[in-house]
Amino acid sequence: MSAPTLDPVLAHIDAHIENAIAHLFELLRIPSVSTDPAYKDDCDMAADWLVQDLKSIGFDATKRATSGHPMVVAHAGDTGPHVMFYGHYDVQPVDPLDLWDSPPFEPSLETGDLGPVIRARGSSDDKGQLMTFVEACRAWKSVHGTLPGKISMFFEGEEESSSPSLVPFMTENAEELTADIALICDTGLFGNDTPGIVTRLRGLLGEELTVTGPSKDLHSGMYGGVSMNPARVLAKIITALHDDNGRITIPNFYDGVRELSPEIATQWDRLNFDSDGFLAQVGLSKPAGEQGRTALEMIWSRPTCEVNGIWGGYTGAGFKTVLPSQASAKISFRLVGQQDPNAIRESFRSMVQSLLPSDCSVEFKEHGTSAGSEMATDNPAFEAARLALSDEWPQAAAFVGCGGSIPIAGHFKTILGMDAMLIGFARDNDAIHSPNEKYDQRSFHKGIRSWARILHQLYS
Amino acid sequence: MSAPTLDPVLAHIDAHIENAIAHLFELLRIPSVSTDPAYKDDCDMAADWLVQDLKSIGFDATKRATSGHPMVVAHAGDTGPHVMFYGHYDVQPVDPLDLWDSPPFEPSLETGDLGPVIRARGSSDDKGQLMTFVEACRAWKSVHGTLPGKISMFFEGEEESSSPSLVPFMTENAEELTADIALICDTGLFGNDTPGIVTRLRGLLGEELTVTGPSKDLHSGMYGGVSMNPARVLAKIITALHDDNGRITIPNFYDGVRELSPEIATQWDRLNFDSDGFLAQVGLSKPAGEQGRTALEMIWSRPTCEVNGIWGGYTGAGFKTVLPSQASAKISFRLVGQQDPNAIRESFRSMVQSLLPSDCSVEFKEHGTSAGSEMATDNPAFEAARLALSDEWPQAAAFVGCGGSIPIAGHFKTILGMDAMLIGFARDNDAIHSPNEKYDQRSFHKGIRSWARILHQLYS
Repeated sequence: MSAPTLDPVLAHIDAHIENAIAHLFELLRIPSVSTDPAYKDDCDMAADWLVQDLKSIGFDATKRATSGHPMVVAHAGDTGPHVMFYGHYDVQPVDPLDLWDSPPFEPSLETGDLGPVIRARGSSDDKGQLMTFVEACRAWKSVHGTLPGKISMFFEGEEESSSPSLVPFMTENAEELTADIALICDTGLFGNDTPGIVTRLRGLLGEELTVTGPSKDLHSGMYGGVSMNPARVLAKIITALHDDNGRITIPNFYDGVRELSPEIATQWDRLNFDSDGFLAQVGLSKPAGEQGRTALEMIWSRPTCEVNGIWGGYTGAGFKTVLPSQASAKISFRLVGQQDPNAIRESFRSMVQSLLPSDCSVEFKEHGTSAGSEMATDNPAFEAARLALSDEWPQAAAFVGCGGSIPIAGHFKTILGMDAMLIGFARDNDAIHSPNEKYDQRSFHKGIRSWARILHQLYS
Repeated sequence: MSAPTLDPVLAHIDAHIENAIAHLFELLRIPSVSTDPAYKDDCDMAADWLVQDLKSIGFDATKRATSGHPMVVAHAGDTGPHVMFYGHYDVQPVDPLDLWDSPPFEPSLETGDLGPVIRARGSSDDKGQLMTFVEACRAWKSVHGTLPGKISMFFEGEEESSSPSLVPFMTENAEELTADIALICDTGLFGNDTPGIVTRLRGLLGEELTVTGPSKDLHSGMYGGVSMNPARVLAKIITALHDDNGRITIPNFYDGVRELSPEIATQWDRLNFDSDGFLAQVGLSKPAGEQGRTALEMIWSRPTCEVNGIWGGYTGAGFKTVLPSQASAKISFRLVGQQDPNAIRESFRSMVQSLLPSDCSVEFKEHGTSAGSEMATDNPAFEAARLALSDEWPQAAAFVGCGGSIPIAGHFKTILGMDAMLIGFARDNDAIHSPNEKYDQRSFHKGIRSWARILHQLYS
């Protein structure tokens, strides 16, 4: 199918890929590590670099101060739909430095398993990914003299340090930041040849509980047999949270959890997810969750209840015959669909209380609450993106899930009322957050082409 | 009842109690801290002091070198029965020194809740207690010119530092150290007015298990729901170790556990043990062990299975959404009667293996094994001692249990084939192992009189 508006853009991208890489190298050379105050000026410099770059392709771009690192906000065009592209210019620290084969802020092209790779901190997460969108806009502008429609960009510099300024900034600038749909480029390909559009994210509810039995640690000779042991009580509580089929037993826990639509179920089946391989790489052989569910359901569309940490009594070398006074656990829930985190917290706490023997008490500590989200994929932008990606990559794109929580997607939804399409080109072996981070040149090149195709679909 | 042999001995003890205290003070001034090499010469000096003292009352006493601190062995007399008295001359360290109200090795008489107390490190544990027996012998010798029968003594200087030389020494000198019965003075009164003869000790079996699921810690977003969680598996194993009635479910666990004889049950009932008070002082209100058992049974005559430590995953401040690769627990069993520790270890490990899902493995680490012991109280020495003690104290003596393990009693049994009578006069508030250790003058005085009465009963 000939696409007179798109084809010259794709040709331009191919012809100028080396310029795009050289341009990305400039940004990668700025050591914008957000957690370390020593790099404060570098973060500022990365924001300035983006502002200048966006101005050069016709955006009204500004650096916006926060109490932490600055935001970059840019707008261009006026024909709909209005898309808001999000990325982050800050990067993870580089320790341990001695495990890097080349200096992390001196980007280089090296050889990888699927062709050349761009090696540098931030090459994948997220400078390389955010520049795929910027380069698509640059190519469009070069070819057509203007951008295809109403496009905004929003870059933060604190994503790797818990985004303390993000919610306040989004709240204060809600009107300016609201668009028809958000685009987020901070995720990966589903497979090397298969792009995915993340349309559902699991939320997260974190709880810590400490069970107290006797008022102090006791000698197990003197008190063993007669005294309550809070480590045993805690074990019993944890055991009671699941039934033998792997279902979570907390009352009303599954309220708001919906079954997959037949369309999505079919798409996921077609992905031929290699669950054996996925498990084998971490030494496992069998999906351990709810019986009767596929592995993809377990991680994308079903909620969980997991122990993230447990401790009590003597845990050092050797042996101490102590009956502990206290035992604690950190427990988290991944939430999906319309599950209400606050209702689940209450129900969990009530259940724990109901399991407590009379000589024990429990204290709870709250560790964060975020709801799951499911995008309204009947928004035509989703189907447009899916078609565009399927044209670019060897395999058709699918609406996939993400087992983790990507806070920015939740913020777009809860603060600005917008759905988000999470589309990214990273690979599992990119070593993000680790030494020798890289981004495939293929990801970068086809990523730019993918966004050009998506813009074409959205505005044609 | 007039006892012409005994009465003048008791009178002599009463008339010379101040000399006995002054004598004890000499021993207390020697800082024989066995764990600290800086006090090596002091430990040697304490042994020399005992040798000299025992020689002065007619014992053939010798200091015997070991690879650690020396033993003291002494023999006297030749008419039966042959009793072997054990004690230890070493003491605990004194840190934190600033919590002592007076220097720990400058003994003084102070005021206590039941009259004067002897304040010093070792006053109760065990110098004051061992000297009760020595002073009883001294008084007997002073009054009658000879000791009442065949008496040996055996003192070690490493009891507070795990007794590394004890088993080798007992094994090498088995013939010399074997007698008809062992006497051990390192325990306490049952109540302020009620002496107890410990005739049953619980053994101890220590196990550590580490359950491994995935080969590395996983992200709970990426793997939560599909991956095995070893902390949950461990909780399930721990929960399965007891049934709802508090009984331990390990196959054949109760083999060798006997019910109390009606005589002992009656004696224990008569003790009117204040189980509410015992539990209340540690913030508890209800015996938590096997249903249908008294609190004394739970701690003296019933075996236990307890979690002494548990750990896995992230246990620091805040939250980390990790699925741990491993979770571990230290679990110990208090054993009674004829329970076979090795058989129980095997049965425990088999049960754990049988509870393990296919994607988990478990590693065990052994942390010590000692069987429980029950003395053959039909040995007439037990009844003799019970009668003698009942004559001295306001309340009748009872054959009691001890929930803990006193290794020397086990060694007498397993190495030398002897039963032991554990008789002591310490009180719960003696602060042994702590700052401001004390021994009641009443304990010391009535302790000496108690041993005189016991010797009288044994040899009359």
